[in-house]
Amino acid sequence: MVVAEAPVKPEGMTSVHSGVAIDTNGSATNGKVANSKQEFMRVYDVLREDLLKDDLIADQPKFSADYMRKMLDYNVPGGKLNRGLAVGDILLHLTKDASTQQLFEANVLGWCIEWLQAFFLVADDIMDNSITRRGQPCWYRVPEVGLVACNDYIILESCIYRVLKKHFAGKTYYPLLLDFFHETTHQTAHGQLLDITTAPIGTVDLSKYTEETYIRIVTFKTAFYSFYLPVVCGLLVGGVTSQEAFGAAKAICIKMGQYFQIQDDYLDCYGDPAVIGKVGTDIQDNKCSWLIVQALQKASPTQLATIKEHYGKDNEESIAAIKDVFRELDLESTFKQYEQQSYEQLSALISQQKLLPEEVFTALLQKIYKRQK
Amino acid sequence: MVVAEAPVKPEGMTSVHSGVAIDTNGSATNGKVANSKQEFMRVYDVLREDLLKDDLIADQPKFSADYMRKMLDYNVPGGKLNRGLAVGDILLHLTKDASTQQLFEANVLGWCIEWLQAFFLVADDIMDNSITRRGQPCWYRVPEVGLVACNDYIILESCIYRVLKKHFAGKTYYPLLLDFFHETTHQTAHGQLLDITTAPIGTVDLSKYTEETYIRIVTFKTAFYSFYLPVVCGLLVGGVTSQEAFGAAKAICIKMGQYFQIQDDYLDCYGDPAVIGKVGTDIQDNKCSWLIVQALQKASPTQLATIKEHYGKDNEESIAAIKDVFRELDLESTFKQYEQQSYEQLSALISQQKLLPEEVFTALLQKIYKRQK
Repeated sequence: MVVAEAPVKPEGMTSVHSGVAIDTNGSATNGKVANSKQEFMRVYDVLREDLLKDDLIADQPKFSADYMRKMLDYNVPGGKLNRGLAVGDILLHLTKDASTQQLFEANVLGWCIEWLQAFFLVADDIMDNSITRRGQPCWYRVPEVGLVACNDYIILESCIYRVLKKHFAGKTYYPLLLDFFHETTHQTAHGQLLDITTAPIGTVDLSKYTEETYIRIVTFKTAFYSFYLPVVCGLLVGGVTSQEAFGAAKAICIKMGQYFQIQDDYLDCYGDPAVIGKVGTDIQDNKCSWLIVQALQKASPTQLATIKEHYGKDNEESIAAIKDVFRELDLESTFKQYEQQSYEQLSALISQQKLLPEEVFTALLQKIYKRQK
Repeated sequence: MVVAEAPVKPEGMTSVHSGVAIDTNGSATNGKVANSKQEFMRVYDVLREDLLKDDLIADQPKFSADYMRKMLDYNVPGGKLNRGLAVGDILLHLTKDASTQQLFEANVLGWCIEWLQAFFLVADDIMDNSITRRGQPCWYRVPEVGLVACNDYIILESCIYRVLKKHFAGKTYYPLLLDFFHETTHQTAHGQLLDITTAPIGTVDLSKYTEETYIRIVTFKTAFYSFYLPVVCGLLVGGVTSQEAFGAAKAICIKMGQYFQIQDDYLDCYGDPAVIGKVGTDIQDNKCSWLIVQALQKASPTQLATIKEHYGKDNEESIAAIKDVFRELDLESTFKQYEQQSYEQLSALISQQKLLPEEVFTALLQKIYKRQK
């Protein structure tokens, strides 16, 4: 039930939007409004300080303010921030005339998505009994935290609505924004439920690992919050309210989210641990991964017997046996075909819709196409 | 960190609103719209079925629908329903001309409060390592559930916003309603954080058990969601939108919620287990209870030493030593004085405000004044 994260963009790399090359200290080369990780981090500091001195919990004792500060800093900003940064990028792809205020608002919404992700990751790690996250112990494993983390992720989530109220309550699109965050939360939680009931810890039931179930899990647990929500946020700040535009964006984002998660599953087995920054464990963890779903469809009776005997077992021999079956079935080629086909389908979907600039989506697609981490 | 629940009204007992005696099958003796537990339960069935066939998770597999049904039925309707039922009662105290539709809406909001409580209780039981809740094993202790409960309470919470959207999205007070649910969630989670960091499991630090900390904890973890939120919901359905009216209601509800929780703490030690339905464990559980806060204020150096030696220890001798100190300090009388004083202060607050019918609040107060369970 690991919720995948997108790879981080290397520090100092330039990003391109509205055709303008931007360096990471935020100055645009042609004077237009531009986004940067540095500016994004500055917005985090503003939001955190606002939350700590929120009227709703005014005069809170120092010990709880200290705890909350530590909890936020530990869980919210330490990831790759791709989803959060995407909102500002999408805004700038949508409109070349975005104001500084609009970019600030996009970044605030970007942080709300990072908060949403932090909330789900803290919960996910407890359920998965995970050890580390983002290169540090999972929050619930911090000695003075433990299962208090169960309340901390409630706070992480409720912070989203404090931030949205403060910065968006006066906007005409505020009700839509609340709706999208509520819906995405419900969808993601549904995806998590599907995931954990399909592959419960300690139980192997491969009959549940169908293509249909797999696609539903990744759509709900990953695609909505990782792709559709950032796009929706960028569109709303940019003034888009058309239901048709959201519909077109949804179709593209869901397909892109599925592709992204399938890449993640592929890299877990075939990626370079030095590049992806971790050693994959999907095989021994009995994950309902894209690879095992493909293998189950293609396997001969003998290979099926090997899978049944070895999948979900945490020893070198079993892992090697499963990898052998994957190799015999040439799942690398299956993936590469899928990747090419997805890219073509996505490109077609993007050019077919005429409601939004193609760049909104092509920039997202280019970031993940053939990614190695 | 136990979240207290109000005592259940005995089955078949009549309730009185708008001066009209109502029996529990919902028929008013004078033909006016009336509320009943039976009608309230009917609304639950409607809401649950809507949630299971929600478009947002349309075509969910049977196994996840079955799981969700079981999870909702196990956690949402099994309590005493006092908070949920209160919303309809408040509406009927507010206006003698409430329509059937308004009462239905009040009951829907009543269920949203029950859903909110269910969500916090599932989390609370995990954090407290609790055994039973409402006469059955805590949800996370059900064998096929375990820590999946961490995701289940996310679903329980997100159901609230699905229900609110379906039934209230068109109302002018919908934004206010969303605001109140978000704020109450943030406040309650803050109260839980204060509670668990003041009295962490396994650590006794009595220096933190001050009157100020205690009052803040109970205000945030209990008063807002148990009293203010039901009143706000009843007022909104009844057409009240004045900020002054909400302000007056807040002052009364917070004071009432504090009184309610202090009763709970008193009954934990002095209540009749046969009547309250459980044996109190606050002393051995090291709770920051009203009794220990009072004892620490009044204790002699010798009594203080006894408290330090024995509080938070789960053996008969230690529990008896603490109860002896409570008896020496005559905390029963301290409580009875506090109770009388609270009743008088609340009555004064209720009659001083002129914005809302007194009955809205006096009916709530009468339900808890001198309660034995």
